[in-house]
Amino acid sequence: MSFLTDKPDIDSTAPNTGVSDGALKDPSNIIPRLQFGEDEYEARIAKVRAAMEKAGLDAIIVSDPSNMAWLTGYDGWSFYVHQCVFLGLTGAPVWFGREQDAQGAYRTVFMGADNVIGYADHYVQSEVRHPMEVLAADIAARGLGNGAIGVEMDNYWFSAKAYVTLQKGLPNAAIKDATGLVNWQRAVKSRQELIYMRTAAKFVERMHKRIAEVVEPGMRKCDLVAEIYDASLRFDSTIGAGGGYPAIVPLLPSGTDAAAPHLTWDDRPMLAGEATFFEIAGVFNRYHCPLSRTVSLGPPSDELKRTEEAVLEGMEKGLAAAKAGNLCEDVANAFFGVLRKYGIEKNNRTGYPIGISYPPDWGERTMSLRPGDKTVLEENMTFHFMTGIWAGDYGLEITESIVIGPDGPECLADVPRALVVK
Amino acid sequence: MSFLTDKPDIDSTAPNTGVSDGALKDPSNIIPRLQFGEDEYEARIAKVRAAMEKAGLDAIIVSDPSNMAWLTGYDGWSFYVHQCVFLGLTGAPVWFGREQDAQGAYRTVFMGADNVIGYADHYVQSEVRHPMEVLAADIAARGLGNGAIGVEMDNYWFSAKAYVTLQKGLPNAAIKDATGLVNWQRAVKSRQELIYMRTAAKFVERMHKRIAEVVEPGMRKCDLVAEIYDASLRFDSTIGAGGGYPAIVPLLPSGTDAAAPHLTWDDRPMLAGEATFFEIAGVFNRYHCPLSRTVSLGPPSDELKRTEEAVLEGMEKGLAAAKAGNLCEDVANAFFGVLRKYGIEKNNRTGYPIGISYPPDWGERTMSLRPGDKTVLEENMTFHFMTGIWAGDYGLEITESIVIGPDGPECLADVPRALVVK
Repeated sequence: MSFLTDKPDIDSTAPNTGVSDGALKDPSNIIPRLQFGEDEYEARIAKVRAAMEKAGLDAIIVSDPSNMAWLTGYDGWSFYVHQCVFLGLTGAPVWFGREQDAQGAYRTVFMGADNVIGYADHYVQSEVRHPMEVLAADIAARGLGNGAIGVEMDNYWFSAKAYVTLQKGLPNAAIKDATGLVNWQRAVKSRQELIYMRTAAKFVERMHKRIAEVVEPGMRKCDLVAEIYDASLRFDSTIGAGGGYPAIVPLLPSGTDAAAPHLTWDDRPMLAGEATFFEIAGVFNRYHCPLSRTVSLGPPSDELKRTEEAVLEGMEKGLAAAKAGNLCEDVANAFFGVLRKYGIEKNNRTGYPIGISYPPDWGERTMSLRPGDKTVLEENMTFHFMTGIWAGDYGLEITESIVIGPDGPECLADVPRALVVK
Repeated sequence: MSFLTDKPDIDSTAPNTGVSDGALKDPSNIIPRLQFGEDEYEARIAKVRAAMEKAGLDAIIVSDPSNMAWLTGYDGWSFYVHQCVFLGLTGAPVWFGREQDAQGAYRTVFMGADNVIGYADHYVQSEVRHPMEVLAADIAARGLGNGAIGVEMDNYWFSAKAYVTLQKGLPNAAIKDATGLVNWQRAVKSRQELIYMRTAAKFVERMHKRIAEVVEPGMRKCDLVAEIYDASLRFDSTIGAGGGYPAIVPLLPSGTDAAAPHLTWDDRPMLAGEATFFEIAGVFNRYHCPLSRTVSLGPPSDELKRTEEAVLEGMEKGLAAAKAGNLCEDVANAFFGVLRKYGIEKNNRTGYPIGISYPPDWGERTMSLRPGDKTVLEENMTFHFMTGIWAGDYGLEITESIVIGPDGPECLADVPRALVVK
């Protein structure tokens, strides 16, 4: 596809919401900025409700900020206090959060100020009050106190205390585990979502290009991270957009530290003779395109070169299997089969679905590309094909983010698929 | 104090951990890089154990990444999978996490590879297995299956499912709520912690200086964020350090959007006539110094000027009350008293303790500077005096991060305390 003819349908020069004449003191006068048409939100809600009915649920409480955003448009860094979207089988979704964050909801959700509920500030981090008491009372007032209510039991942002408090506040409700119910509906991407992900891909291309340009022995890692953020954020007229923050900060361990997948950075200089992997993502409108590459400052070790060869050959096999109708495990088995031929054992999954995300994770937390995952791949599912190898004393990451097609995948970003030697 | 004579006690030019001769395939050969002496970790653990005994707990499961780091040194962006520190009344703490992240633990925790337990990868985001099954079995094997085990019930990172799984796996244990038990021990800072926070303060000074230098009408907000990250990260020889990532990304809503405290940014241009608050933090070794300032592009409105006057006068009163022996609410009441004189009602807390932090929050989640909080202030407690005003159609944030002293506070950063008009 031509990227430029499919630019994001947003007007990046529009003025900020409303005008400051006091009218906004009445929230119903605030016009939110939406990144999708209302029809798209309605379609998502319909999919979720179908899943709710199948699961026998009268309502769900959605705590995952990525799910909240996907369902309503809500955007803001307020997930460090309790908040959620409440969705019944009829009517609009309800945003529920801290009173001061209702202002953010007015500006970002599609369903109007009437469906935004803020709880008083003295519920924040109190040892004697809990926001779920307020939510439970609201649910009871809606006549759902005897209903079957789904909660995201194993999603961060739904704490054990939230669960216990909700149970206590709704003694006659059946509180059921609905972990992943919304996440699964996010798997197949819409046309507009793919546009945002392709835009994110342009940013990750720019980020890897910048790394290859500037990295050298003696450069302090914190300075390199500044370059990575710069390339991830600045407005680019050829892209027609500026970037957002990633759900995971740059990961870039060097040398033997690259055996650890999730170290971040420090302020020491990059060293000649060390290899560093860069696990980073481009982000646009909260949609992510992760992509990893590895840079060797100086000639790589034989072990690293051999691992690169295995990974690249394995990726070809894995990508060939990444088509609609195949299973998640088919991609993993194809990749792992080649690794095994080289005597490399990878004992962790080799990919996960991606899309809209908030910290701490840019994965969708549903399928995994691993042996045993029999999920059928569908057109326009999107994955980070995470082919990283973390050995005892080194690491190599060369990965692709892909869109599943009928005959094979589209690689979202175009970054040379090889170890960068400098 | 002279900052330069109290430089961080770290050697920022030390080589990476160990050498890549295969020896590191045995984790016991890995020498971790620690940011505190072992004696400091031991002192922290002793404080926590005293609190455990007082609460009648035989052991605690610590899921909050900030608490995990404070207790053991563990550092890494792996909190999107289940992990924790397990601490009994005797012996070393135990790091428990995903197998691949054990590599990160070997490199960052003080207590040696023997006290690092990794669970197999097929427990990650499985619908049929849960990491807490492994932990429960381990706790039982330690002979604590009948014990009183504290968990962080209302801390993110301890999900409802983790709780239920743990209960099932330890049917004879008493699982008790220990939310905040470790957090409270973090309140009074050590000498080394204060050095890190003063270093973080130097970064936030540099960030606000940069904003004041570069912001102008027409500048796209994403480009301004790139400048903020640049100033937060790059090595500074006068500071003697480079910066880390903040637990909350920059918040910088403009105009009427500044009524919402937790919006992030987009790629549209800054507009003349709008005011923007910047809620940002400098970070060093995961220690934070948050500080907010507000910039008006063009003459501020009378309303904004009057709010500034009220906030600055109120801050003086609040700061005067921020001394050892006073209560948290004394600071809030002093500040709110002045606001009320100006007819401004602030219906949310006006500060919280700060220190070591991981996303999503740079607050310590214990005390609040709000009416009713009777916690006694102690020397070397540290707070973000969060004096932000979010009205219906504008916002103003001018804040300070402070160290409680015997006669009054030390302001960590030195940034002109006024609305910036440009």
